[in-house]
Amino acid sequence: MLSIASKLAAQAHRLLVTRVDPGCFAQMKEQLPEAVYHPLARAITINRLSHLPSRPGVMVVSGGTADLPVAEEAVVTAELMGNVVDRAYDVGVAGIHRLLDHLPQLRRARVVVVVAGMEGALPSVIGGLVAAPVIAVPTSQGYGASFGGLAPLLAMLNSCAAGVSVVNIDNGFGAGYIAALINSIGEAGEDGEEQVQP
Amino acid sequence: MLSIASKLAAQAHRLLVTRVDPGCFAQMKEQLPEAVYHPLARAITINRLSHLPSRPGVMVVSGGTADLPVAEEAVVTAELMGNVVDRAYDVGVAGIHRLLDHLPQLRRARVVVVVAGMEGALPSVIGGLVAAPVIAVPTSQGYGASFGGLAPLLAMLNSCAAGVSVVNIDNGFGAGYIAALINSIGEAGEDGEEQVQP
Amino acid sequence: MLSIASKLAAQAHRLLVTRVDPGCFAQMKEQLPEAVYHPLARAITINRLSHLPSRPGVMVVSGGTADLPVAEEAVVTAELMGNVVDRAYDVGVAGIHRLLDHLPQLRRARVVVVVAGMEGALPSVIGGLVAAPVIAVPTSQGYGASFGGLAPLLAMLNSCAAGVSVVNIDNGFGAGYIAALINSIGEAGEDGEEQVQP
Amino acid sequence: MLSIASKLAAQAHRLLVTRVDPGCFAQMKEQLPEAVYHPLARAITINRLSHLPSRPGVMVVSGGTADLPVAEEAVVTAELMGNVVDRAYDVGVAGIHRLLDHLPQLRRARVVVVVAGMEGALPSVIGGLVAAPVIAVPTSQGYGASFGGLAPLLAMLNSCAAGVSVVNIDNGFGAGYIAALINSIGEAGEDGEEQVQP
Amino acid sequence: MLSIASKLAAQAHRLLVTRVDPGCFAQMKEQLPEAVYHPLARAITINRLSHLPSRPGVMVVSGGTADLPVAEEAVVTAELMGNVVDRAYDVGVAGIHRLLDHLPQLRRARVVVVVAGMEGALPSVIGGLVAAPVIAVPTSQGYGASFGGLAPLLAMLNSCAAGVSVVNIDNGFGAGYIAALINSIGEAGEDGEEQVQP
Amino acid sequence: MLSIASKLAAQAHRLLVTRVDPGCFAQMKEQLPEAVYHPLARAITINRLSHLPSRPGVMVVSGGTADLPVAEEAVVTAELMGNVVDRAYDVGVAGIHRLLDHLPQLRRARVVVVVAGMEGALPSVIGGLVAAPVIAVPTSQGYGASFGGLAPLLAMLNSCAAGVSVVNIDNGFGAGYIAALINSIGEAGEDGEEQVQP
Amino acid sequence: MLSIASKLAAQAHRLLVTRVDPGCFAQMKEQLPEAVYHPLARAITINRLSHLPSRPGVMVVSGGTADLPVAEEAVVTAELMGNVVDRAYDVGVAGIHRLLDHLPQLRRARVVVVVAGMEGALPSVIGGLVAAPVIAVPTSQGYGASFGGLAPLLAMLNSCAAGVSVVNIDNGFGAGYIAALINSIGEAGEDGEEQVQP
Amino acid sequence: MLSIASKLAAQAHRLLVTRVDPGCFAQMKEQLPEAVYHPLARAITINRLSHLPSRPGVMVVSGGTADLPVAEEAVVTAELMGNVVDRAYDVGVAGIHRLLDHLPQLRRARVVVVVAGMEGALPSVIGGLVAAPVIAVPTSQGYGASFGGLAPLLAMLNSCAAGVSVVNIDNGFGAGYIAALINSIGEAGEDGEEQVQP
Repeated sequence: MLSIASKLAAQAHRLLVTRVDPGCFAQMKEQLPEAVYHPLARAITINRLSHLPSRPGVMVVSGGTADLPVAEEAVVTAELMGNVVDRAYDVGVAGIHRLLDHLPQLRRARVVVVVAGMEGALPSVIGGLVAAPVIAVPTSQGYGASFGGLAPLLAMLNSCAAGVSVVNIDNGFGAGYIAALINSIGEAGEDGEEQVQP
Repeated sequence: MLSIASKLAAQAHRLLVTRVDPGCFAQMKEQLPEAVYHPLARAITINRLSHLPSRPGVMVVSGGTADLPVAEEAVVTAELMGNVVDRAYDVGVAGIHRLLDHLPQLRRARVVVVVAGMEGALPSVIGGLVAAPVIAVPTSQGYGASFGGLAPLLAMLNSCAAGVSVVNIDNGFGAGYIAALINSIGEAGEDGEEQVQP
Repeated sequence: MLSIASKLAAQAHRLLVTRVDPGCFAQMKEQLPEAVYHPLARAITINRLSHLPSRPGVMVVSGGTADLPVAEEAVVTAELMGNVVDRAYDVGVAGIHRLLDHLPQLRRARVVVVVAGMEGALPSVIGGLVAAPVIAVPTSQGYGASFGGLAPLLAMLNSCAAGVSVVNIDNGFGAGYIAALINSIGEAGEDGEEQVQP
Repeated sequence: MLSIASKLAAQAHRLLVTRVDPGCFAQMKEQLPEAVYHPLARAITINRLSHLPSRPGVMVVSGGTADLPVAEEAVVTAELMGNVVDRAYDVGVAGIHRLLDHLPQLRRARVVVVVAGMEGALPSVIGGLVAAPVIAVPTSQGYGASFGGLAPLLAMLNSCAAGVSVVNIDNGFGAGYIAALINSIGEAGEDGEEQVQP
Repeated sequence: MLSIASKLAAQAHRLLVTRVDPGCFAQMKEQLPEAVYHPLARAITINRLSHLPSRPGVMVVSGGTADLPVAEEAVVTAELMGNVVDRAYDVGVAGIHRLLDHLPQLRRARVVVVVAGMEGALPSVIGGLVAAPVIAVPTSQGYGASFGGLAPLLAMLNSCAAGVSVVNIDNGFGAGYIAALINSIGEAGEDGEEQVQP
Repeated sequence: MLSIASKLAAQAHRLLVTRVDPGCFAQMKEQLPEAVYHPLARAITINRLSHLPSRPGVMVVSGGTADLPVAEEAVVTAELMGNVVDRAYDVGVAGIHRLLDHLPQLRRARVVVVVAGMEGALPSVIGGLVAAPVIAVPTSQGYGASFGGLAPLLAMLNSCAAGVSVVNIDNGFGAGYIAALINSIGEAGEDGEEQVQP
Repeated sequence: MLSIASKLAAQAHRLLVTRVDPGCFAQMKEQLPEAVYHPLARAITINRLSHLPSRPGVMVVSGGTADLPVAEEAVVTAELMGNVVDRAYDVGVAGIHRLLDHLPQLRRARVVVVVAGMEGALPSVIGGLVAAPVIAVPTSQGYGASFGGLAPLLAMLNSCAAGVSVVNIDNGFGAGYIAALINSIGEAGEDGEEQVQP
Repeated sequence: MLSIASKLAAQAHRLLVTRVDPGCFAQMKEQLPEAVYHPLARAITINRLSHLPSRPGVMVVSGGTADLPVAEEAVVTAELMGNVVDRAYDVGVAGIHRLLDHLPQLRRARVVVVVAGMEGALPSVIGGLVAAPVIAVPTSQGYGASFGGLAPLLAMLNSCAAGVSVVNIDNGFGAGYIAALINSIGEAGEDGEEQVQP
């Protein structure tokens, strides 16, 4: 993976490598000193474009603390694509009032990424609170009848809120990418970037 | 089924027959004129005990209109076992404020039966709002990736609220029965009743 | 369903009822003469807003002829929500050149709904051709190892193209609704509408 | 997990941490000398309330020796919530007379937690012997067609005894918590506690 | 099927046709006046051998009334193969004492066929009570999380009693056949028979 | 496990411990010098009964070399229960003539245990060649669409040969035990033995 | 379907319509008098090419009588594509000698289509007997743990014979088509044909 | 495995051992100095036949870089069986134009092996571009809803292109073997070879 990343890094303005452990980053850092490691997201980014994130509108919400790495992967992805991302973490459905405290923020978002494991109910609740499209990300957190994330995946596909679409289990990158695509509608086209996923 | 029900009816003080269509009830009515049909619940009851339902504490909540027959089956069961049942229907998670309007009622309940199809999220939200035990009933309503109720069943088993236990898909009878058992704790023992399920 | 629809129709500016067979529409027509039946989509719409669809940007693509009802359900939904919808049907991946003929159209779209059964490959191919977000709809068409649409559902969730998110099997309504949400970004908020799904 | 537990411990009167291995406890012990380790349950508790467990009525039953850690997790949970717990272990259905020896105990219980792997039959047999509600816990013990506990989970959901509800595979904590909720009915409300589950 | 059965009947000393509805039997009766219909088992037999069933040792046990047709299919099969079959029906595990009443009978059997739906627990309980081999038959009776008999099938395969082997869902014929094979051990070889299964 | 085995060994005439690795046996050997290790079967036996295996009639057949440990577990079990066991290994269905070379042996057996992974076809072929009951054991050998032995398990349950019943995946012990039960029919009852399975 | 078929028939030299019931054919016959109905295969063909089937090398084998329609669909497809097809039906693995009687035929084939339901073992046995490629077709015949053909599908994918590849459940058309492609290797290219599948 | 391979190597003209890690090869090299290791394919070959690969016509195509080991296993297998193999790697469906660049090559092939993970769409696209038979190999690459390769396996079985048949997940050997069988049609029969798969 290291060599693929190096090759891509030689050519691209921006680079995102997901699912990287710290040891692997240490090696890469020697070859690519401009690489930045995001420990929560377990991702590396390189951004040679001078401008900083500047487009508001993307919000990333997650249920439990265990869903955090996937949520952060979505954040890092959307930021690299030029978005300022608003976060609300640890607002699972079993404490609905903590979620409702974020209502003003949620209603300002143009697109919401919702990351949840367990029963996968958060996207439905949020889908009922906002008019923006919701990108739901099931996580493989959980045990027993979670079956590696199958439980929240099925729940999200059966969401009773109409504006919810779903990506693969643990696919924070995909959700962040789609959110960035949606948030850029009405603006000049995105320039391409490269992704390496082990 | 008719003959089984008739035999049981000859012996029992109370009788509950579930999943009965109106045509079948019409036949039974001739033989058992005291039988009562509950069209929403699709259930027949006979109650030869003089007393009316009198024990408050059971609440039955459901998500969509399609879940109503299962919810009513739970209500009829718990009523026959001597409970006054409080209802809150059509309070799915995509309209969380409709649910929150019922908060005072929910907090008064000693046990809550929650019936939901689709993503099966309602028991988790309610489990986070009340201190009472929650009996969750997944329904086979839905289509596609619901897989006959598998989606809400798995969601409920993975509930992030700690007080939730689950019964079989569409098993309104079981949930009402368990709610009645729980609600009778601290009182004199239940007298047995008979159930026929086709 | 008829009575629910009638009640909703009394209050709403716009109404969409999906999965309606022609016989059921005939009955409804008597009570709601302004109702319009879309036979391919098997949907009824009522639109009391004076303006016609006017916002371009949504495209709906489908693979085989059997996927047509689901694709049309997406079209009718997006149209009712104020969009002019571009269609490309019968462009399955086994005839890739028929799809490539639509490339200029595809690249003009701001959001693409892709409906496919069988191996569910079409969203990946289109996701690789456009920079717009792709809403993938698996269909239950097929037999044997399709397992009621499970095969294209899993395929779409594992899409190697990054901009693809997925809705439930046969959920044309959801896909059209999300496409309309996305296409309205940067415009004044949507006014609510009602949907009844049997 | 250690740091989360420490933070929670600073605030709570009672604390339960499940699925802790001995090495992890050794570290925690230094920071929280009042922490108690329950090696069979693999759980840590802190109880700063002066009173000891005092409410009888909860019974925990298990099938095989392999189910013991899950059963003990239920016991520790219920005890921390103020219950004196009665145990009957190693009374699987293939030796029905060993189970029947516990009949007087079983009939005294107000709520019974039943932990079983393999064919998951124990809750049905006990459900037929007692009038109390039964909380069934499938375990992931077993091999081959157990599929990680799916076999006993499905069996318990299909129990022919009417008073059985089910929690997630290996979820001893949830079962003990629900049993404590049920056993406290008719008493003053529970004070909240915290749980950390890795 | 009728023509296949007729052809076989022309050649065989004994014939068994399973899963026959009464209408189909009426037609067959005209051509094969010696055919006997077993309405509970939904099976037809022809036995041109002069001797009646005479070999004791096979017992067939079933849980609920809904399992009766499968149990009777096993009985009819074993009888046609020369066995006197002992029955114990409606002895499900939720009423364990009804089962224990049959203990003397069970201990006399050389091989026991156990037919059960729901949680499929009966073979384990019986396997713990007898030293004879147990042939377990799951049935497709049940609903919801039974998944067409998958629940009892998995339960039986995971039986904690060592002497239990399993046949396909609803395969009463197979179980009766194997029981007859086992019961004939130590005697002269079986003469072949024909079976037609639609 | 070691301590359980030691306790059992103190009481029993015969003992079987399955799924033991050589290191674990080395430890046990010190405490129980009479213990015998069967490396292929990965099992330990202790037999304090003076008599050697003496009852012929059990045959164990396996498909591939990878199925050998499960087959040997069946052999060791049946031998400990007093049977002389006939073996035929590496006779998979893709080389049908190697299997047919064993026909005389197969036809002499009173009961046949058939162990197979991959497509699980061997029990059907053998079931068509012999009149004896066949106990089929699927193995978890294989990869990909074997799904841990699900493929041969389902194949064996659907066997087109009528005399085949099935035990759990990799359950060589169960198959050997049932074979011994069947082979002892017509003789004095088995004395009990103990088994420990980790 | 009728109108699609008519349109295709206007343009093509050869046409195959699969899964047609006799009533539907009767209607089509009026419009397309040259159409031929194959009742066993439930297929319609039109062949306007003057030449008759002439290329030997394809053999179609099936297990049970219930698999016959799928086998005949393969035959009709391969014949329409110019092949003389050799058949061997009703040669299931439980009667291995009936299959071995066809060995000379099997060894002459250049490609063998093998159709089987139940345990799906036939392709493995044949794959071990011939050096030609084997195209395996699982059928949905069977009940219970067949799960609509899943059992033979998994078995065939796990075949221990190396030359076996698999098509979808009941896909006789696909198997016949692939067999024809393979058998035409080394000859002039196939001319295209049309297929309509409802 | 080493000893099995050595024994086979003593007898065979050609030998293929798959799924070998480098350490294992190092050991084997000492005993079999003529053995060749193919690191990408993780396979060892010995070819004592003097002639080099010489028969053109087999092409192996793969989607992502992660599918490469399986693709190379197919290549090594087909080469050992006397074929010159044409490769096109990293031509996944999300970059359809990279695939179309290989069209002349693809159209020259007599049989195409297509290796793909993720959504498994590549065989359908290629099946629509060529008249040659396509052997599809799903890989276990991917995560989440890939379920160990189930997603591409189901996709390939449901391919809308008619000439596609499928082998087990990751079974590069099987695909290369079948391709070689097909490519040798019309030539002198293959001489046998041995394969060892751990």
